[in-house]
Amino acid sequence: MTQSETLDLSLQLLRQPSVTPVDHSCQEIMAERLKKIGFNIESMRFEDVDNLWARKGNTSPVFCFAGHTDVVPTGSPESWNSDPFAPEIRDGKLYGRGSADMKTALAAMVVASERFVQKYPDHKGSIAFLITSDEEGPSINGTVKVVEALEARNEKMTWCLVGEPSSTNRLGDIVKNGRRGSLNAVLTVKGKQGHVAYPHLAINPIHTASKAITELCETVWDNGNEYFPATSFQISNIQSGTGATNVVPGTMTVTFNFRYSTEVTADELKERVIELLDRHGVEYDIQWTLSGLPFLTPVGELVNAARTAIKNVTGTETELSTSGGTSDGRFIAPTGAQVLELGVLNATIHQVNEHVNVDDLEPLAEIYEQILVELLS
Amino acid sequence: MTQSETLDLSLQLLRQPSVTPVDHSCQEIMAERLKKIGFNIESMRFEDVDNLWARKGNTSPVFCFAGHTDVVPTGSPESWNSDPFAPEIRDGKLYGRGSADMKTALAAMVVASERFVQKYPDHKGSIAFLITSDEEGPSINGTVKVVEALEARNEKMTWCLVGEPSSTNRLGDIVKNGRRGSLNAVLTVKGKQGHVAYPHLAINPIHTASKAITELCETVWDNGNEYFPATSFQISNIQSGTGATNVVPGTMTVTFNFRYSTEVTADELKERVIELLDRHGVEYDIQWTLSGLPFLTPVGELVNAARTAIKNVTGTETELSTSGGTSDGRFIAPTGAQVLELGVLNATIHQVNEHVNVDDLEPLAEIYEQILVELLS
Ligand SMILES: [Zn+2]
Ligand SMILES: [Zn+2]
Repeated sequence: MTQSETLDLSLQLLRQPSVTPVDHSCQEIMAERLKKIGFNIESMRFEDVDNLWARKGNTSPVFCFAGHTDVVPTGSPESWNSDPFAPEIRDGKLYGRGSADMKTALAAMVVASERFVQKYPDHKGSIAFLITSDEEGPSINGTVKVVEALEARNEKMTWCLVGEPSSTNRLGDIVKNGRRGSLNAVLTVKGKQGHVAYPHLAINPIHTASKAITELCETVWDNGNEYFPATSFQISNIQSGTGATNVVPGTMTVTFNFRYSTEVTADELKERVIELLDRHGVEYDIQWTLSGLPFLTPVGELVNAARTAIKNVTGTETELSTSGGTSDGRFIAPTGAQVLELGVLNATIHQVNEHVNVDDLEPLAEIYEQILVELLS
Repeated sequence: MTQSETLDLSLQLLRQPSVTPVDHSCQEIMAERLKKIGFNIESMRFEDVDNLWARKGNTSPVFCFAGHTDVVPTGSPESWNSDPFAPEIRDGKLYGRGSADMKTALAAMVVASERFVQKYPDHKGSIAFLITSDEEGPSINGTVKVVEALEARNEKMTWCLVGEPSSTNRLGDIVKNGRRGSLNAVLTVKGKQGHVAYPHLAINPIHTASKAITELCETVWDNGNEYFPATSFQISNIQSGTGATNVVPGTMTVTFNFRYSTEVTADELKERVIELLDRHGVEYDIQWTLSGLPFLTPVGELVNAARTAIKNVTGTETELSTSGGTSDGRFIAPTGAQVLELGVLNATIHQVNEHVNVDDLEPLAEIYEQILVELLS
């Protein structure tokens, strides 16, 4: 086995069964290493969530590594080929829960910082770490709270690199420079309960809403733009009926989600849905939940530094993407920081036998280090 | 309080808590009275269901009273103004579970038979009673089994009067000379589960079936005819989704029901639904359950006898109807018997504080008696 500092720290972190919101000493392990190279350590615990804010330097610009120590549950451990919390290397792959999402990136961040600080003890600006143990969960007491605390004391990040697994086929082939917004709704269609044998005395909400639902499914909400795919609409749940086959139900509940681009706003989407429902004469209540504003970091210093570093280390041309689910970047971007997500391959995240290529670990640490070099040396 | 034999027997039957499939001696009470006037009594128990076949006379034509002693559950007895099984008269109304559906009709049948037999001891043909305790339940071991037993020994009914509460505003204003067919289906629409953020990797069954469902709701299946309203289509249940707001569901289940006229057949409806689903490219499984063939007794001896009797007793012009749910008439009509449903007002059936007008009881017995006179004297 190759000697690899990134692999060693990865193994240490992967042995911690840190299922959301439990950090299980991961942040302590990282903080100890960072403390040794001059970082100031702040633990910020909110409710049952551990967060770490570590910073080296007091001046601007501030380069921040962001990420999470928590992992999603393993499911039945028997369905894994090896213990999800006893990391194992087989055929050049490192298996373990969190190996891809995202403990190897955390290790690479620490190692990159150590090497950078050793080579550039008098680097300009500051390096910081914003680490939470609640990214995979409700995300209420994690990054968002740390950002609030920093904002309250007017502590700003200039650039933020989130270590989420952004790569698809090769390390560094894709970085995410934004994410779509996410808007949820619970639509309750109102009818009038009755007996199927007397339909004229009932109002069947499944029937009255059917045309409106078809139109919601077929509407083109926008065409996306340079950075974003077109806004998408998906119904995740529909429920109506008592179970009895002879009863016309009185209400129907429809849950749907928009993943939306920067070409529309959440308010515009709401207005258009309401106009559509009203035009079809649907009787309804609707409850909206905005679960994430879209964010975008246009091409600039951070994107360019990442592209150069990836090209130098791996030879790969990087593509920008804003697809996929939400990430904690949504909480950081509104502060004005440039936010970029760059990490290992995401093919196996949240699955059984989650793994990562061992040979990607040192290159990832090198990429991170070179980005620091580009921006702070 | 008026002296009324029909009321007295009604009270006796209403005191029996005969919730489906329990008869609780109701049939014994009736059989005892019928035996006294020369009926031959046959108890036919199938599984947990009591049935009574009683017949006076061995010759044709056979006039049969049909009905059920079982009642639907009371729900919470506290929501009633009086004990549902302790019948009570208030303001000219007789309250109790089964008062409308249909113990007062059973009482009227027995009293009418007694009076008719006394006046016409040498009447022609036969009088029969086909009484079950499983009309409100699964209807598997009730009327259908008795009819099978009679058919097996080639015992035929000429006319059958079912005592279901057919009246709407005044006693006898409506009789039912048929019922629509009832066809149920469980449609399973197949998609492919996925994440709402990656809709191109999923197939959302709610979306793919939405146009087909709209067309099912909007189709005119037929225009009915002289006796039947147009065939109606109602979705009773629709269900899809895991509950999670970020998962595109893999399947959707839709339960629907046709109440259909004699202008279409169940097979035609199935074919048309399948053609429609295929035309919309829906991927599906479908399970059909035919819960009742339509039946119809055109105007003839039985309808005319009922009209004359109602007119003579109440002065009311009777209307024919085939609307409403299914009834045990569907099992009797296929034997070739003329089937008619005639009973008290149905406004409160299956509800709390079910009741009937006390002043309708003796007239109902008189109507039943006069029908016997018309057909058998
Ligand atoms: Zn992650
Ligand atoms: Zn009934």
